[in-house]
Amino acid sequence: MEPGDAARPGSGRATGAPPPRLLLLPLLPLLLGWGLRVAAAAAAAASASSSGAAAEDSSAMEELATEKEAEESHRQDSVSLLTFILLLTLTILTIWLFKHRRVRFLHETGLAMIYGLIVGVILRYGTPATSGRDKSLSCTQEDRAFSTLLVNVSGKFFEYTLKGEISPGKINSVEQNDMLRKVTFDPEVFFNILLPPIIFHAGYSLKKRHFFRNLGSILAYAFLGTAVSCFIIGNLMYGVVKLMKIMGQLSDKFYYTDCLFFGAIISATDPVTVLAIFNELHADVDLYALLFGESVLNDAVAIVLSSSIVAYQPAGLNTHAFDAAAFFKSVGIFLGIFSGSFTMGAVTGVVTALVTKFTKLHCFPLLETALFFLMSWSTFLLAEACGFTGVVAVLFCGITQAHYTYNNLSVESRSRTKQLFEVLHFLAENFIFSYMGLALFTFQKHVFSPIFIIGAFVAIFLGRAAHIYPLSFFLNLGRRHKIGWNFQHMMMFSGLRGAMAFALAIRDTASYARQMMFTTTLLIVFFTVWIIGGGTTPMLSWLNIRVGVDPDQDPPPNNDSFQVLQGDGPDSARGNRTKQESAWIFRLWYSFDHNYLKPILTHSGPPLTTTLPAWCGLLARCLTSPQVYDNQEPLREEDSDFILTEGDLTLTYGDSTVTANGSSSSHTASTSLEGSRRMKSSSEEVLERDLGMGDQKVSSRGTRLVFPLEDNA
Amino acid sequence: MEPGDAARPGSGRATGAPPPRLLLLPLLPLLLGWGLRVAAAAAAAASASSSGAAAEDSSAMEELATEKEAEESHRQDSVSLLTFILLLTLTILTIWLFKHRRVRFLHETGLAMIYGLIVGVILRYGTPATSGRDKSLSCTQEDRAFSTLLVNVSGKFFEYTLKGEISPGKINSVEQNDMLRKVTFDPEVFFNILLPPIIFHAGYSLKKRHFFRNLGSILAYAFLGTAVSCFIIGNLMYGVVKLMKIMGQLSDKFYYTDCLFFGAIISATDPVTVLAIFNELHADVDLYALLFGESVLNDAVAIVLSSSIVAYQPAGLNTHAFDAAAFFKSVGIFLGIFSGSFTMGAVTGVVTALVTKFTKLHCFPLLETALFFLMSWSTFLLAEACGFTGVVAVLFCGITQAHYTYNNLSVESRSRTKQLFEVLHFLAENFIFSYMGLALFTFQKHVFSPIFIIGAFVAIFLGRAAHIYPLSFFLNLGRRHKIGWNFQHMMMFSGLRGAMAFALAIRDTASYARQMMFTTTLLIVFFTVWIIGGGTTPMLSWLNIRVGVDPDQDPPPNNDSFQVLQGDGPDSARGNRTKQESAWIFRLWYSFDHNYLKPILTHSGPPLTTTLPAWCGLLARCLTSPQVYDNQEPLREEDSDFILTEGDLTLTYGDSTVTANGSSSSHTASTSLEGSRRMKSSSEEVLERDLGMGDQKVSSRGTRLVFPLEDNA
Repeated sequence: MEPGDAARPGSGRATGAPPPRLLLLPLLPLLLGWGLRVAAAAAAAASASSSGAAAEDSSAMEELATEKEAEESHRQDSVSLLTFILLLTLTILTIWLFKHRRVRFLHETGLAMIYGLIVGVILRYGTPATSGRDKSLSCTQEDRAFSTLLVNVSGKFFEYTLKGEISPGKINSVEQNDMLRKVTFDPEVFFNILLPPIIFHAGYSLKKRHFFRNLGSILAYAFLGTAVSCFIIGNLMYGVVKLMKIMGQLSDKFYYTDCLFFGAIISATDPVTVLAIFNELHADVDLYALLFGESVLNDAVAIVLSSSIVAYQPAGLNTHAFDAAAFFKSVGIFLGIFSGSFTMGAVTGVVTALVTKFTKLHCFPLLETALFFLMSWSTFLLAEACGFTGVVAVLFCGITQAHYTYNNLSVESRSRTKQLFEVLHFLAENFIFSYMGLALFTFQKHVFSPIFIIGAFVAIFLGRAAHIYPLSFFLNLGRRHKIGWNFQHMMMFSGLRGAMAFALAIRDTASYARQMMFTTTLLIVFFTVWIIGGGTTPMLSWLNIRVGVDPDQDPPPNNDSFQVLQGDGPDSARGNRTKQESAWIFRLWYSFDHNYLKPILTHSGPPLTTTLPAWCGLLARCLTSPQVYDNQEPLREEDSDFILTEGDLTLTYGDSTVTANGSSSSHTASTSLEGSRRMKSSSEEVLERDLGMGDQKVSSRGTRLVFPLEDNA
Repeated sequence: MEPGDAARPGSGRATGAPPPRLLLLPLLPLLLGWGLRVAAAAAAAASASSSGAAAEDSSAMEELATEKEAEESHRQDSVSLLTFILLLTLTILTIWLFKHRRVRFLHETGLAMIYGLIVGVILRYGTPATSGRDKSLSCTQEDRAFSTLLVNVSGKFFEYTLKGEISPGKINSVEQNDMLRKVTFDPEVFFNILLPPIIFHAGYSLKKRHFFRNLGSILAYAFLGTAVSCFIIGNLMYGVVKLMKIMGQLSDKFYYTDCLFFGAIISATDPVTVLAIFNELHADVDLYALLFGESVLNDAVAIVLSSSIVAYQPAGLNTHAFDAAAFFKSVGIFLGIFSGSFTMGAVTGVVTALVTKFTKLHCFPLLETALFFLMSWSTFLLAEACGFTGVVAVLFCGITQAHYTYNNLSVESRSRTKQLFEVLHFLAENFIFSYMGLALFTFQKHVFSPIFIIGAFVAIFLGRAAHIYPLSFFLNLGRRHKIGWNFQHMMMFSGLRGAMAFALAIRDTASYARQMMFTTTLLIVFFTVWIIGGGTTPMLSWLNIRVGVDPDQDPPPNNDSFQVLQGDGPDSARGNRTKQESAWIFRLWYSFDHNYLKPILTHSGPPLTTTLPAWCGLLARCLTSPQVYDNQEPLREEDSDFILTEGDLTLTYGDSTVTANGSSSSHTASTSLEGSRRMKSSSEEVLERDLGMGDQKVSSRGTRLVFPLEDNA
């Protein structure tokens, strides 16, 4: 109505805004799910304004007002994304300072959370509530909520889309604080954009050698352990909830399945902090493999477990009681999703391996990297398109890519792909953790319940204990090289919760129970990351876990679990098969992998012409890469994950200290300070191994006095 | 109502669907802007279903139906994204085959378009129209269109957001074909997600040496040339439009400003195909620099020009006639946006350079790369937050990063950042081109007008000619080393249109005029990429442009434009300043850059203690990096973009053939075939240079007979 209003669009454009439709910047809402509503409204207004050229006099004022609003919203989007980028930048610079000064009590993720917290406090208490711009209009309608609505405004039709239900009490507070709303993400962003690169990177960077050597134990910890932990936590929490009900602390429903769901999401461990320190101090590689392997796989287990528990719910039909049929259906769903996702991941990995093997793509590293990236991404989509879990598929795709495809890549592509996913992983991880810090203050639906929180801390402690110690006991019955008490305590200690628990918890915060779970998960992540992360270094030295080990070297003989029959090993290995005690199924898989899969999928391994029966000679010749005949010897070393014999070990054991020191010069960050530290720990190491850890039995006996639990053995 | 309906959600979940709220996969719509409507509806339905636990009996049926729909939509999203990924994968494999067989008549972008076309045809004619699921509801309302709508459905409130206006005739065809709709992107995706990495990469990979040597000419081509081309094309097209009006071929309005807008968007050249072949054949580096520099900068000019033209429009108030005030306002807007974006980009680049210089971040390449990436991205956001053009800012940020920050990075980060942006650029570019192919058949608002299309082809030809030849003539007056006729013809020939023209055209397709422009732009891109791309190699040999040049070598003396006073060059350079003829302003900038900016922002250049006056000695000592004193000599070479003297040149000129052949072994793709080809062209080269190109005057005279335009000179 005012003339000033009519003049403004020009001045708005004078500041550089593109044509009407270009005003909004959907990158931000599109990419990050922010301000979807406002942006969509702006888009609509903009497109309305551009298509409404014929009626430009009638509704010009309105359009201009909406345009201004859109521009404003667009700027706010940019500003809030900038906030996150500056947060990350600050985190990076501080991480550098910490690394530079060798501060180890706080990990980068802990730091990101602290900065997030600070910014969250500022946003919460420092920005004014701008609730003035309420453009809502009520329109009563009798039917059910449609997904699309056509509204006739003085002859013109506008299309509206359903955004969601609003509880009547919140109608006025929807737009309470623009800035707080802007920094609140669509939860699915975490699951579908930020987690996949993290998980893929985890799979792709699994240290094959040590991972496969401990595969049996890792699988046991990940599957059985997570299930045990989930049920123990779930039941304990149900007790807590009952207690809260008695004390009148519970203001809404909280079912048994909710408790189990909480058990599932909180069972996903993420010892990123501990592993970072392990990496830095070059701690024991087998312990590293156990912890890393467990945490990677239990993320997958936790996702699928939580879906299965949710799938259990509706069959209960209001009773939420135990129903055997529904239970077995849930178990079936678990197995179905898990095996489906596993298959998807493995299949894409295998296809990529075949493509990179049979084309000479390695002459063009850029094409190779792009193909690798696309194929890995398509795993996610394929799994989602088939109704499986993309994140889990991506994990197994990563493992398959690392096991097969990686060997076919050119040297440049190997480093390219690793670096690409490393950067993506780094950014995604720190983003999630700084968002966690932020969410503690900006998330508007927190339900803090002290009893529930304390109960949860106790429950995760007990759940972790009930998972690690009994399982280790049973595993040790089968393992020749026992998992020592110090390893068990370290694993018990390393039960941090991180990105996966958070992503699972924030995915659904609609009900009261879920909101309480989310708040509790957030606090558990904070405290475990800060306290356990800070305590890792002291704990390592207190538990006498050796550090300064070169991860590329074989570990000392006391910690490896399998010795596999090596089909075509060197003569020294052939002569010395005293340790072939690993499970027959694993040996079977290994020899199948080594004799058939590797030769088919990669350029390494024995030629298929020698391993396949004579009648498929033609096929064997087609599938065998010509490089195999030349490369057979040099590639053996890369391929010999399981060749480990008495003779080799003594040799390795003998010079591992030298190698650890000798290789320190190749690490970029190694200075004289670290060098001396490592030298010290390495020499401590030699002593230690000579005295105690060299023979696991002695070591166990040495600690038996302190931890009488071993009496069970 | 049916019992089967109630049983289905369970089975839906049994296939692995996560809990209700998790059903949708917003990654795809969020990231790519597809099916925003359906997804939002699904989200709403899902959140409604999860928050509706209290009323689970009443609306269970509806929820389940919506849930199923959401799940279906989610799968379609995954499938359509998979389609694109498979398209890209196919393109990559075919590119490899082409590169492997040295096919040069079709570039990867042309190939991507062809595959896109094929898939588009299949989607258009091969999929059934699934228009059955119309969930729309009309609700007449008197007031203006609000951005948010609250709808009361039997006591529950649902929030709707405005999606856009629909012309009444299209109400029934909105949901015509789900699959076609799914593969149609939000146009802003191109501008805000796909273009930035392409443009940043262009800036980051500008060959500094040759770029700066030809900076004057490049700026002239980019600024003056694009403006000239825009106005010529705009005016010619206005003539065409008048003609169409007379012939009754125009069914809606088409203003003069629309014509100018078309001139602006179609003036953005993108000789990606030509440059790829130049790169492969190692064609003349100065021609490469001219073409590349022009195309990079004219993208920026075209964006800002098109915004300015749009900003001109509303001031005309229905008349669309010439208005001097509005015109100068548009010019002001142009200058404002351009300089603002430039400043933003340069500032972020400078900040990154300072940060990487004054921290020892280069010990941790991962942190360094992450910081680099974040800072570059923040340029885009900062510019958008301030109302400037993010894409333009990102270009100048890339140039600044390459000029300063790059020198501070660790060796690993240099390759990491290059490779990261190379991969992003490659994927984004091929994605855009394959989408173009697809859009020809799946875009539902095409307006094919043969007269307009033919007119446009003629206009861009004339516009390019009126831009290249006169400008080259004037530039040659100032250049000592003239731009030869063969170069001018090659530049004329290389006026391909590509990603930028497409992105600008698809950004707004609301009006009839814009739809016609979009269709025409699409066809222009197709034909220029296919025909000109395929004709580059024959054209190069027909125009006698030398190939097989090592880009790291100095060019022969006839093609460089500036010889700059080198403050502290070697003595041989000092003694030989016969060629100092470049513009004084450029010399001033160069010495300022070399003496002050480089020492402040990087570890190279002369120490500030020697270049700054004595009274700021303390400051100089603080700002000068300690490495400068050690590195001064070794870094000179990298820094010596402009050291080029007669003595050096003769030397370089003398052995450039040898070097070109000698270095061929370092290129991965070079085989004996290419080797021999290059050797051949190199030896042709020697002859050629000895006979003609060695003296540009002779070369010009040689072609004068063919192109009598030079008589003007």
